[in-house]
Amino acid sequence: MKRHLISAADLSRDDALLILDTADELAKISERSIKKLPTLRGRTVVNLFFEDSTRTRISFEAAAKRLSADVINFSAKGSSVSKGESLKDTALTLQAMGADAVVIRHGASGAPHRLAGWVRGSVVNAGDGTHEHPTQALLDAFTMRRRLGSLDGRKVTVVGDVLHSRVARSNVLLLSTLGAEVTLVAPPTLLPVNVDSWPCEISYDLDAVLPKSDVVMMLRVQRERMNAAFFPTEREYSRRYGLDRDRVAKLHDDALVMHPGPMNRGMEIAAEVADSPRSTIVEQVANGVTTRMAVLYLLLGGANLGGEDQ
Amino acid sequence: MKRHLISAADLSRDDALLILDTADELAKISERSIKKLPTLRGRTVVNLFFEDSTRTRISFEAAAKRLSADVINFSAKGSSVSKGESLKDTALTLQAMGADAVVIRHGASGAPHRLAGWVRGSVVNAGDGTHEHPTQALLDAFTMRRRLGSLDGRKVTVVGDVLHSRVARSNVLLLSTLGAEVTLVAPPTLLPVNVDSWPCEISYDLDAVLPKSDVVMMLRVQRERMNAAFFPTEREYSRRYGLDRDRVAKLHDDALVMHPGPMNRGMEIAAEVADSPRSTIVEQVANGVTTRMAVLYLLLGGANLGGEDQ
Amino acid sequence: MKRHLISAADLSRDDALLILDTADELAKISERSIKKLPTLRGRTVVNLFFEDSTRTRISFEAAAKRLSADVINFSAKGSSVSKGESLKDTALTLQAMGADAVVIRHGASGAPHRLAGWVRGSVVNAGDGTHEHPTQALLDAFTMRRRLGSLDGRKVTVVGDVLHSRVARSNVLLLSTLGAEVTLVAPPTLLPVNVDSWPCEISYDLDAVLPKSDVVMMLRVQRERMNAAFFPTEREYSRRYGLDRDRVAKLHDDALVMHPGPMNRGMEIAAEVADSPRSTIVEQVANGVTTRMAVLYLLLGGANLGGEDQ
Repeated sequence: MKRHLISAADLSRDDALLILDTADELAKISERSIKKLPTLRGRTVVNLFFEDSTRTRISFEAAAKRLSADVINFSAKGSSVSKGESLKDTALTLQAMGADAVVIRHGASGAPHRLAGWVRGSVVNAGDGTHEHPTQALLDAFTMRRRLGSLDGRKVTVVGDVLHSRVARSNVLLLSTLGAEVTLVAPPTLLPVNVDSWPCEISYDLDAVLPKSDVVMMLRVQRERMNAAFFPTEREYSRRYGLDRDRVAKLHDDALVMHPGPMNRGMEIAAEVADSPRSTIVEQVANGVTTRMAVLYLLLGGANLGGEDQ
Repeated sequence: MKRHLISAADLSRDDALLILDTADELAKISERSIKKLPTLRGRTVVNLFFEDSTRTRISFEAAAKRLSADVINFSAKGSSVSKGESLKDTALTLQAMGADAVVIRHGASGAPHRLAGWVRGSVVNAGDGTHEHPTQALLDAFTMRRRLGSLDGRKVTVVGDVLHSRVARSNVLLLSTLGAEVTLVAPPTLLPVNVDSWPCEISYDLDAVLPKSDVVMMLRVQRERMNAAFFPTEREYSRRYGLDRDRVAKLHDDALVMHPGPMNRGMEIAAEVADSPRSTIVEQVANGVTTRMAVLYLLLGGANLGGEDQ
Repeated sequence: MKRHLISAADLSRDDALLILDTADELAKISERSIKKLPTLRGRTVVNLFFEDSTRTRISFEAAAKRLSADVINFSAKGSSVSKGESLKDTALTLQAMGADAVVIRHGASGAPHRLAGWVRGSVVNAGDGTHEHPTQALLDAFTMRRRLGSLDGRKVTVVGDVLHSRVARSNVLLLSTLGAEVTLVAPPTLLPVNVDSWPCEISYDLDAVLPKSDVVMMLRVQRERMNAAFFPTEREYSRRYGLDRDRVAKLHDDALVMHPGPMNRGMEIAAEVADSPRSTIVEQVANGVTTRMAVLYLLLGGANLGGEDQ
C-alpha cells in the first residue's frame, strides 16, 4: 500500500481487500466494552479541517483514539491560514510538530495531493472539493460486503448530484476495482462532462434501473445548489430522483439502500425508507469508524505491529 | 439507578445519596497529585453542545478524562446540524460511532429526553432550555452536604430569575428529595406560572427570609433578558434582590452563600460577598468535576468496576 | 526555577540553560517512533486562549500530550468570558477544576501575571499583548544553540516591527541573559519609546548590520497595522527591511535566518530565503514542541521525576 490515501484510484484490488479485511478484524474490537487497542500509542494524528465537517472529523477522531493515538484538531478557521499562510507552510508546520498522519478536509480539489508532497507523514484525504472522499467509498464497500458478501458482479446504482459529489467519484473508482458494476442516475446537468471515461454506466431513468440493483446509494442534495440553473425545483427533483416507498417496492428483497449522510429526509430519501431494515445508513456510520481505524492502522502501524508480533 | 440522567426528578433519595457518596470517594482522587483512575478506559464520552457553555463542557471533559475515558467534543455550530440534520439523525450518528455516554446541552427543553429515546448509551442532561440541569443540582447538594452535613431540614433560599432558570428547577426537585426545605425569592414576573405545584415555598421579601436560611443560592441574572418587560431595571433588581454586605449581615454565622457561576459581580452578588469565607462558589466548581465523575462512573462504569473487584 | 513562566526576564542564566539542556534530552524522544513519556500522566494542562493562535495552541497541546498530560482547550470566544466574566473568575474556575498548568494567550499585556496571582498551578505565558512570548524566545535560543553551539558573544539581529512584537522583547531579554549581543533594526516609528533601556543595540541600516550577524531574525509584518500612520508602504517596507537574496548574500556562510512564523513570503522575507539551507524556520517549529515539553516538564514534573528515579 502507498503511504498516503488520496484517491480511491490509488488502491489496487489487493490494497482495498487488505483494508476491508483489516476492518473486519477491527470490527470485533468495536463490539467489546473496552474498544481500545494500544497500536498507535505515541503517534499523533492531526485533523486539518478547512471546511466544517463534524461527522467526518469525529469519525476519524474516534478511530484514532480507539487505536490510542493522540489527536490534535486543527480547524483552519481563525488560524494563521486565515491570515494568509500558505498550505505549504501549514504543512511544514504540522510536519515539524511531529504529525504522523494528517487527515485533511479542504474545499479545493487536489489540496491533499499537494499536502502529500510536503510532509513525511501519511496524508489521508477526508474530502477535497468535488474530487474524492476515499474513506467514504471504503466504508460503503465494507458495508456492502458485510451485507452481501463479495462485491464481484454486484450492481450498485448511485443517484443524485454526481457532478458535485466526491462520494460518487470515489465510489465509482473503488467499486469498479472491487468488481462491482456501477450505474449513475442523475439529471444530465448534474453529471460531469467527462463521465463517459468513468468505469460505469449512465442512466436517466431511475425506475428502470431499480429492479436490477443490489444497492441503491442516494447522494445528499446540497440545498445551497438548488437555486443554480442546472438544478430542477425541489419538488421536481424529489419526484424524479427521490427514493420513496413506491420506488423501494421495485427493488428486489435483499437490495440495500445507502446514504452517506447527513440526509435531507423527504427530499432525496423518504423518512420511512431511511429507517427501513434495508437501509444501512446507521451501519455506515459505525463502519466509518472501523474502516478509518483500518486505514490509520495500515498507514501508520502495520510494520510496527508486525515487529511486535515476532 | 436509571441509565440516563435527564431530570433531578429521576433520582430517588437512594440514587441521589449513592451519587453523593461516590463523589465523596472520588474527591479523594482529586486531592492526589495524579488525579486519574483507569475506570472508564476505552469508553467514549461525547460532549454534544448545541449552546456554548465552556465551563460546563470542560467540567465534564475533566471528569471524563480523570476516569480515563476518551472525550470527543461536538459543537453543533457549523456542523451538519446547522445544515438541517435532525436531532434524531445526530443521535443515531453518535450511537453508531460508539458513544458510551452523550452529555447534551441544548436550547430546547426536552431535547435530552428525546435523545435518550434514540441511543443505547447513557444520556446526561447538561442543561436543556429553561428545564433542568441536574448535575448542577447534584454538585450544589454535594457542596452543602460537605459544609453542613446532612441536608435534612436545612433551609435553602434560591433567589432570582427562577422563570428562566434550569438551575433553580433542578435544585428544588433534588433538594426536596434530600429533605431540605426550599424557598424561592423572585419578582412575581420571574416565577413560572405553575410554581405552586413545586415542592417549595415562595416569598417576595428577601430580607424576611434571610435570617432563617442555612443556604442562600443566588441565580445568575441574564443581562440579555434585562430589557424584557418582566424585568425591573438593573439598579432596582440589585437593590431588591442583590446580595450585598448588609443583607449578608442578616444571615446566621454558619449560613452559606452559593452561586452557579458565572457571576455578575455587583449585580446579583457583591464582589466582597462572593469572595467571603461563607461563599462556596469556588468549591462548587471543584465539586462539579467530582460530582460529574460520580455520575459518569455510576452510569458507565459501576458494573465493570464491581467485576474488577472480585 | 520559579513556578510560573511569565517573562523571559524571570529566567536566570542557570534557569535558561536548564530548560535548554532538558529540551536537548527531550529532543531524543521526538526522534523515536513512539514520542511519548509517562511523566505528566494524571496532570491537566489547560490551554486558555483569548486570541486565536492555532500554531501556538497545538504546539503546547502536542508538548503536553507527549508527556501524557490531559489537555483541555478553552477558547474564550463564546465562553462566559465573552458574557463578561472577569479573568479572575475564569482563573478561579480553572484552578478549582484542578488545572496543574494554565497556558494563557491574551490580547492584554500583563494578563498572565495577573492570572498567576490567582491560581495555585503554574502559569505559562503563551503571548500577552505586545509584552512577551517567553517560550518563543526559548525555542529560538534552543534552535541557535543546536546550530551554533554556545550563544556567548553571538551577534543576533532582529528586524522589523519591534514596537508591537512580544517575540522581539522576549528574545532581547533571554538572549542577553545567555550572553548574545542583540541588535534591533527597525524604522524609528516601530521602536518602543523606552528601547534605550533594553539590553541591546539599535540600528536603522540593515545592510550595514548583516555582514557581522551570526543570526538574522525577521519579525512578522502584521498587515493589519500597515495602514497605520507609523508604517511605510508595503513596497517601501519590503525594500528597506525585507530579507531578499541580495541581502542574504551579505551574510557570512554560517549565519542563520530565523522567523517565528507564520511568514508573509515576499514581504519581510523572500520565499527562496525562507526555503534556503540557512533558514531554521521549520526547525523552530519542531523545537517549539520540544522546548515547551521542557518547560512543562520542569514546572510540573521535575520533583516527581526525581522521586521516581530514587
